[in-house]
Amino acid sequence: MKEVMAIVRMNMINKTKKALSAAGFDSMTCRKVYGRGKKKVDYELINSLLSGGEIESPEVAEAVSEGHRLVPKRLLTLIVNDDESEKVIDTIISVNKSGNAGDGKIFVIPVSNAVRVRTSEMGEEAI
Amino acid sequence: MKEVMAIVRMNMINKTKKALSAAGFDSMTCRKVYGRGKKKVDYELINSLLSGGEIESPEVAEAVSEGHRLVPKRLLTLIVNDDESEKVIDTIISVNKSGNAGDGKIFVIPVSNAVRVRTSEMGEEAI
Amino acid sequence: MKEVMAIVRMNMINKTKKALSAAGFDSMTCRKVYGRGKKKVDYELINSLLSGGEIESPEVAEAVSEGHRLVPKRLLTLIVNDDESEKVIDTIISVNKSGNAGDGKIFVIPVSNAVRVRTSEMGEEAI
Repeated sequence: MKEVMAIVRMNMINKTKKALSAAGFDSMTCRKVYGRGKKKVDYELINSLLSGGEIESPEVAEAVSEGHRLVPKRLLTLIVNDDESEKVIDTIISVNKSGNAGDGKIFVIPVSNAVRVRTSEMGEEAI
Repeated sequence: MKEVMAIVRMNMINKTKKALSAAGFDSMTCRKVYGRGKKKVDYELINSLLSGGEIESPEVAEAVSEGHRLVPKRLLTLIVNDDESEKVIDTIISVNKSGNAGDGKIFVIPVSNAVRVRTSEMGEEAI
Repeated sequence: MKEVMAIVRMNMINKTKKALSAAGFDSMTCRKVYGRGKKKVDYELINSLLSGGEIESPEVAEAVSEGHRLVPKRLLTLIVNDDESEKVIDTIISVNKSGNAGDGKIFVIPVSNAVRVRTSEMGEEAI
């Protein structure tokens, strides 16, 4: 079994879910994350705001600075059988590939076991 | 080491935490996720609302449509030693099994290493 | 490839990100989690509030009790190549180690594959 985690643009999440559902993958969880790619951050600006007293609270500073450097994204997670992960990846790419930076990333993580709480079924039966 | 991730009903989280604590598992993290099972979604309704101009913003459409198809759940995560994962799973099942759809899912993921930041301890000592 | 997940204090997240960026690790996601360590929780107090009618809704009870037992933390996640995980861990420890309880935990999870959606690149090239 595999966990497929896809970080995609917020406005692509519905289209992605619909495409996955059409491909036979209906079970998933979704959450908001803040992500960033390889673009450098202007920490000097942030620090000068902090040290200059323009921002006093570290929490406010974090919020302000996150506005500059962290982009809200959606993280979609599916658990699938080994032979299905390729189809899931292809489906996510087909919907999200625009050729621009920020199209997203997909990570695949091995899963040792799955359990359906209602029935106590384990393994591939539980997915 | 293993990461045990349990997706359970929101109103079961306190009872689950209490049972895990009683079984000797006190360390965990908890977060809100939006999940769905195998039930089909009425995408035609969503798209007709969007295309008919009743909803204009894709973000509002997402929120509305999430109301229909995504159920807020709690995701509980514990990192435990290999020989403890079965006890954790049994405890979660014993609290959450009602026999109804939506009782939840548990996934087990292999963990290569753990580090306690305060002491730099690694491996099973750090759990 | 490895997923390095670090749970750190909320007010340490900016400093941690900056140190990771200085060490050459710019790509990461960040999210809020509620975590707790090994400290015991006063479930009797919570239950007496609930059963005494002082709190009626289980959701309110959860919020109140979370105030007592769950601490908001930040969860930082990086995906790196195998030979980079040690440097990431050392960087996170160097910033977050104060010697006090609550300094945080780091977990390392094996990653089978990574995909850059924009280019369809896979494996280490995609990180």
